[in-house]
Amino acid sequence: MQEQVVCVAAVTVLGALEQAYFSLQVIYARRKYSVSPPDTAGPPEFERIFRAQANCAEYFPIFISTLWVSGLFFNQVVTALVGLLYLYGRYRYFWGYAYSSLGRLQPLYFTAKVQWLLIGLSATGVLLSMSQQYLGLDLPDCLFGI
Amino acid sequence: MQEQVVCVAAVTVLGALEQAYFSLQVIYARRKYSVSPPDTAGPPEFERIFRAQANCAEYFPIFISTLWVSGLFFNQVVTALVGLLYLYGRYRYFWGYAYSSLGRLQPLYFTAKVQWLLIGLSATGVLLSMSQQYLGLDLPDCLFGI
Amino acid sequence: MQEQVVCVAAVTVLGALEQAYFSLQVIYARRKYSVSPPDTAGPPEFERIFRAQANCAEYFPIFISTLWVSGLFFNQVVTALVGLLYLYGRYRYFWGYAYSSLGRLQPLYFTAKVQWLLIGLSATGVLLSMSQQYLGLDLPDCLFGI
Ligand SMILES: N[C@@H](CCC(=O)N[C@@H](CS)C(=O)NCC(=O)O)C(=O)O
Ligand SMILES: N[C@@H](CCC(=O)N[C@@H](CS)C(=O)NCC(=O)O)C(=O)O
Ligand SMILES: N[C@@H](CCC(=O)N[C@@H](CS)C(=O)NCC(=O)O)C(=O)O
Repeated sequence: MQEQVVCVAAVTVLGALEQAYFSLQVIYARRKYSVSPPDTAGPPEFERIFRAQANCAEYFPIFISTLWVSGLFFNQVVTALVGLLYLYGRYRYFWGYAYSSLGRLQPLYFTAKVQWLLIGLSATGVLLSMSQQYLGLDLPDCLFGI
Repeated sequence: MQEQVVCVAAVTVLGALEQAYFSLQVIYARRKYSVSPPDTAGPPEFERIFRAQANCAEYFPIFISTLWVSGLFFNQVVTALVGLLYLYGRYRYFWGYAYSSLGRLQPLYFTAKVQWLLIGLSATGVLLSMSQQYLGLDLPDCLFGI
Repeated sequence: MQEQVVCVAAVTVLGALEQAYFSLQVIYARRKYSVSPPDTAGPPEFERIFRAQANCAEYFPIFISTLWVSGLFFNQVVTALVGLLYLYGRYRYFWGYAYSSLGRLQPLYFTAKVQWLLIGLSATGVLLSMSQQYLGLDLPDCLFGI
């Protein structure tokens, strides 16, 4: 089954690298603004970087779960491309938020749209697979087929 | 392998939708109680909604991981039903907590039990699979078989 | 495909158990230091335990994602052993941090190294698989083969 998921696996590794990169930025910011663990409060500059990483980390499992479901049940190449857009959006979210609270909004809307797309692709793939498996219906064939 | 996991994939998509729904509630609560990012402190009504979503997000990866292991190694239909119970419990946890701190407790005990069940099913499935693969023992057959 | 992932599935179940164990410590600490939800601030002893669990929870999805990619594309036995080292490091991180802020550092460096190793193994496995699938190159064979 490795061939069926190698592209989403590649995006998963990139996603892990991105999260590690965000964490390193929090560590640098803790040094720069002298905010020692277990504290999480500090100057707004620090708090924005801290929250940007926390927000990305909070959504990472949702992203990875829908990435794999969409890759397995919809199409792995399309899914991997959508996954790259998500990681790009998160990169811009992180630095937008680090710069100013308002700066997070535009990339937030972008990543939200990409995440909804991934959820939609996953749901479509799963529904097609279920209707075929349990109802014996080949939906794409019924709807568009000859 | 898609047929073997389509039910847990469906529960995964529902779980992603539920987490997205909880996040939207935090965004509405931020507007209603005027708590702008990066702030996370505010009136207790806001903080309960904020923490309810944070708590659900924190357990989501544990839920998804054990859901898939249990689906792959134990039984996907049983696992998917247990997964639906978990998502139902989390829904009640979220709104119970949003209503009052005490309100979170009963659904918390419920989801904790469901999560332990999922861990138990995963562990059982993995142990059976390992004993078969590495010891050549078909345990269900040894224990209950003819 | 179950045989190909049974070892990483076992480590996944252990990881879920470890996270559940850390969560229980936060619940005990909330009782001991009287910090009722939704509060997260309290005496430093409490905050260190709270943050130790939050930090482990935040990295858990990255760990699980790279564990599975490495197990599927590199080698599942090597990956499972590296995964056990990670869980051991996280156990020491948790109790080191609970004891003192400085106490978290040594195990943190250890788990960070193990996490980088997992990312490296995942990336290697995925790259080998991609070069074979899309370029028709059997890299290990090209580089070291007869
Ligand atoms: N944990 C998030 C959940 C909702 C969310 O994703 N909110 C967006 C739009 S307000 C955000 O950028 N939150 C900033 C943050 O999490 O610090 C929050 O506290 O806001
Ligand atoms: N992060 C959790 C870990 C332990 C947990 O899940 N606690 C339960 C029972 S006290 C809870 O509902 N916590 C509320 C919260 O996380 O805000 C915490 O801070 O309490
Ligand atoms: N959320 C983490 C991200 C970076 C990280 O993992 N930092 C290490 C080294 S400073 C740590 O032990 N953080 C303690 C903590 O998260 O409370 C943080 O706030 O520091």
